[in-house]
Amino acid sequence: MPARMKRKPYELFYWPGIPGRGEYVRLALEEAGAPYVDVARERDTGMEEMMALMEGEGTKHPSFAPPFLRDGRILVGQVAAILFYLGPRLGLAPKPEAGALWTHQIELTITDLVAEAHDVHHPISVGLYYEDQKKEAARRADDFRGQRIPKFLDWFEAVLAANGATEAKPRLVGKSLTYADLSLYHTVEGLKYAFPKAMGRLMKNRPLVASLYASVKKRPKIAAYLASGRRQPFNENGIFRHYPELDK
Amino acid sequence: MPARMKRKPYELFYWPGIPGRGEYVRLALEEAGAPYVDVARERDTGMEEMMALMEGEGTKHPSFAPPFLRDGRILVGQVAAILFYLGPRLGLAPKPEAGALWTHQIELTITDLVAEAHDVHHPISVGLYYEDQKKEAARRADDFRGQRIPKFLDWFEAVLAANGATEAKPRLVGKSLTYADLSLYHTVEGLKYAFPKAMGRLMKNRPLVASLYASVKKRPKIAAYLASGRRQPFNENGIFRHYPELDK
Repeated sequence: MPARMKRKPYELFYWPGIPGRGEYVRLALEEAGAPYVDVARERDTGMEEMMALMEGEGTKHPSFAPPFLRDGRILVGQVAAILFYLGPRLGLAPKPEAGALWTHQIELTITDLVAEAHDVHHPISVGLYYEDQKKEAARRADDFRGQRIPKFLDWFEAVLAANGATEAKPRLVGKSLTYADLSLYHTVEGLKYAFPKAMGRLMKNRPLVASLYASVKKRPKIAAYLASGRRQPFNENGIFRHYPELDK
Repeated sequence: MPARMKRKPYELFYWPGIPGRGEYVRLALEEAGAPYVDVARERDTGMEEMMALMEGEGTKHPSFAPPFLRDGRILVGQVAAILFYLGPRLGLAPKPEAGALWTHQIELTITDLVAEAHDVHHPISVGLYYEDQKKEAARRADDFRGQRIPKFLDWFEAVLAANGATEAKPRLVGKSLTYADLSLYHTVEGLKYAFPKAMGRLMKNRPLVASLYASVKKRPKIAAYLASGRRQPFNENGIFRHYPELDK
């Protein structure tokens, strides 16, 4: 019996149609071979269930926004909190407090980068179209490519180096794969999609981040997932968007 | 002997001169009467120590940015992670997993609001002065006041209601005060400083959030702290800035 069948499936609630922030949770579940239902995509009533949990009167712990995860009586939202919950259960985080916290801290820093990656194309308002804030987006993109991506990548490179990582064994925390490695992989993937020219240059000088990215992408379960129909492609409704005019 | 003397002090590392994100940690420590050193403000070598921990070769867990907290061998950064660590130790969070996670999730949502409050005056780049992005800030402020603050306040109001909170007992999680209550108090304080006109209107229809704010502000230890020299006033170098042209 495959691992995916052994327990009651986790229920992941996220918008269909984009990888979005839900992807960070999916990658952890996929790498662990954990059973899960991507509720809004897989169930006919999925969207209604998701909206009811966010807005319903009877929800004790309503999330501000998807993604959120249900595991029996636990309902938890915010990507980093979901991964903090799943990490030790999926074998994707150290259990001792110091290591668990550090993995979480790295994830929260990835969260900050992801929010900035989103705001590049929405610097004024999430409620307006990109077309209504293109001029501002062009200015913000210059700063994001020139200052912010390098600063974050340098930090990840330093964290890898401080962990004694090598190009042969590029891990952020200890010697084993954690959800932070998966999340950094996906963030680099998203940035490469959005800013292929800039990332082509920037990744040349960050050998440890580059090795981490490559090593995660070829892991058997991740590679199988990426080749499957479960993986949704990046597109211009998501967090990471390719607008050629924002890349240089 | 006062409570502040009983244990080895926590060491808080944060930029001097602004309440900033460090204030969320200070409020928890102050409410608990926990001993702490605000290193960069209180030690002659504080700034050097802080920079060394961020940039030094010997730091195993370097933070991307302040604040971070040292407690013996634990070094933890990111406000929400610091409070997750301190919460149960200071009696400011439930210990069972579901409650601890939910308190954390609320804090992470406050973190998102705080980041947006910052980006109102820096919608293009943290590396540029406000004066160099005033036009963009004016557009973003319209959206922040008109759409985002109301949406977040409505969520906090709903979370309070779902918790059975009343104006007499306005708590976000369970019946006892948590660090999330302290953080929401401070965020409302910051928003009132930055947007007095808008917040004057918006708080009228959010009675539970308004009660929480008032009840935290008059707690004996918080009131004593606010009246002390330890409390730094808001100013136009911080996260919450009052630019009259951004308030309506």
